[in-house]
Amino acid sequence: MPPEAKHGQVQLVGSGPGAADLLTIRALRAIEGAEALLYDALISEEVLALAPAHCLKIQTGKRAGRTSMKQETINGLMLRLARRGLRVVRLKGGDPSVFGRVGEEQAYLRAHGIATEVVPGVTAACAAAAQFNFPLTHRQQARRVVFSTARLEAGALQADWSAAADPQTTLVIYMGGGAADELSRRLIEAGRLAGTPAAAIESAGSPHARVRRGVVADLASLVEGGQGGPVLLVIGEVAALADSKVVQEFAALSA
Amino acid sequence: MPPEAKHGQVQLVGSGPGAADLLTIRALRAIEGAEALLYDALISEEVLALAPAHCLKIQTGKRAGRTSMKQETINGLMLRLARRGLRVVRLKGGDPSVFGRVGEEQAYLRAHGIATEVVPGVTAACAAAAQFNFPLTHRQQARRVVFSTARLEAGALQADWSAAADPQTTLVIYMGGGAADELSRRLIEAGRLAGTPAAAIESAGSPHARVRRGVVADLASLVEGGQGGPVLLVIGEVAALADSKVVQEFAALSA
Repeated sequence: MPPEAKHGQVQLVGSGPGAADLLTIRALRAIEGAEALLYDALISEEVLALAPAHCLKIQTGKRAGRTSMKQETINGLMLRLARRGLRVVRLKGGDPSVFGRVGEEQAYLRAHGIATEVVPGVTAACAAAAQFNFPLTHRQQARRVVFSTARLEAGALQADWSAAADPQTTLVIYMGGGAADELSRRLIEAGRLAGTPAAAIESAGSPHARVRRGVVADLASLVEGGQGGPVLLVIGEVAALADSKVVQEFAALSA
Repeated sequence: MPPEAKHGQVQLVGSGPGAADLLTIRALRAIEGAEALLYDALISEEVLALAPAHCLKIQTGKRAGRTSMKQETINGLMLRLARRGLRVVRLKGGDPSVFGRVGEEQAYLRAHGIATEVVPGVTAACAAAAQFNFPLTHRQQARRVVFSTARLEAGALQADWSAAADPQTTLVIYMGGGAADELSRRLIEAGRLAGTPAAAIESAGSPHARVRRGVVADLASLVEGGQGGPVLLVIGEVAALADSKVVQEFAALSA
C-alpha cells in the first residue's frame, strides 16, 4: 500500500462515476486526508461530503457548456497550495488517465518540483456497462473497445473514424451528446452499418443514470430529452444487450 | 447504493488490478458478504483474504499457460451454488466488462432464472497508467485509447490492426506477452512507425509490477525476462512518459 500523501504533495485522484461506494479504498483515504481539494464540476455531492470539514474545497468547473477555470489557473492553484505545505487532492471524475488531462497537470507539477501520485478510478464506460448489464468486449461480437471523444472543431469531427467501422469493435464516445448527429453520419460514411446497435447513457454510474437504446442511424434522437448530465455513446453489438427495463423508464421520463 | 446481495443471487465483481486498496468499496462489501467465492487465478491473496472465514472459495483458473476450468463448468458451478441459496460472488481481475467474459456468464445465469449484479472495477490499463505516471489520452498526443487482446489463432493475429496505425491512438494490448513479436510486425505493416514508443508492463497495479520501455520495433525484447505475471503492452507516444526509475529497477531484476 502506498504511503499516505505527504504535505506539499499532490494526489491526482479518480473518483469513479459518482456513487461514493464506487470510489476505490485508496481514493477514499486520499479524500479523507485532504487539506485542499480541487474538484471538477461533475464530482458528486456524496463524494465531496467525504472530505474533512476543515478541508479547503475549490470547484474547478470543466462541465460541458459552462464557464470553467482555465487549465493554467488550476495548475497555478495546485502549485500554490502544495507549496504552502498542504496535502492537495485533485479530484477528477472517472479515471484520471482517460480524458482527464492528468498528463498535463502532472507534467506541470513535476516541472515545478512537486511530487505527485495518481490514484486510478472506475472509468465511465466500465461503470455504464456494469450498471446496464452489457459487456464492453464479448465473444464473437466485440474483440476490442475504443474510448474516444467527439469534440467538434470548426463544426466537424476532427478524427479518423475508419477504425470504428470494424463490426467487432465497441466504440465508446465520452462527452458525446453534442456531436451525436455528426458522429452518426461519420460512422456510416466510414462503413459502420446504420443498423448497428447503439445506446446513449446519461450520468453513467450515478444513481440518476438513464439509458436509451437504438441504432447508429438514430444517434441524434437518442440524446434528445436528456437531463443535462454527461452523455456516453456506446456503439456496437453489445449495446443491444443493455437493460431494456431502464430504457422504458427513461422513455417515460423524457416523453 | 444498491442493496446487499440477496441469497441465491450472483454478483459478478471486478477486483481491480490486485492491490486490496484498489478495490471499490462496493466490491469490498460484496467480498465481505460472500458465502461462495469463485475467483480467477490472478486474484491476489491480499484480496482473497477479505472473504469471510466460512466462505467457500473455488479457484477457476484462467491463467495464461495453465489448465483452467472450462467456462461451462464455471457456469454450472455458479448456478448450483446460487440455487442452494448462497450469496455467490464471481470475482474477476480488473473490470468484468473488459475481457472478463462477464456477458457470457451473465447471459447463462439469467437464462436459468438467477438474478445478477455487476460491480465494476479498475481495469489494468488505468492501473498501469496511474502506477507508472503516464496518461492513456494526452493533449496533442493521444486522442483515443484502444483496448485489445493479441491472441494468436493458427499462429497469426486474427484482427484488423489498421486502426492502431493512427499516431494519435494509444493501443493497450491485454495479455499481450505471447504475441509481442507478431504484433510488432503487424503494427508496422499497418503503418505505425517502428520508432513509436512502447512499454511492456507486467502485473500492472500490483506491488510487484514491472515496466520496460522501448519502441514498437522492440516489442518482443520488452517482454523477455518476465516473472510470469500478465503482460500489458502499451503502444503510443504516451508510453514514452512512463516512469524511467522503475524501468531501471526491472532491467536490474531481469538481467
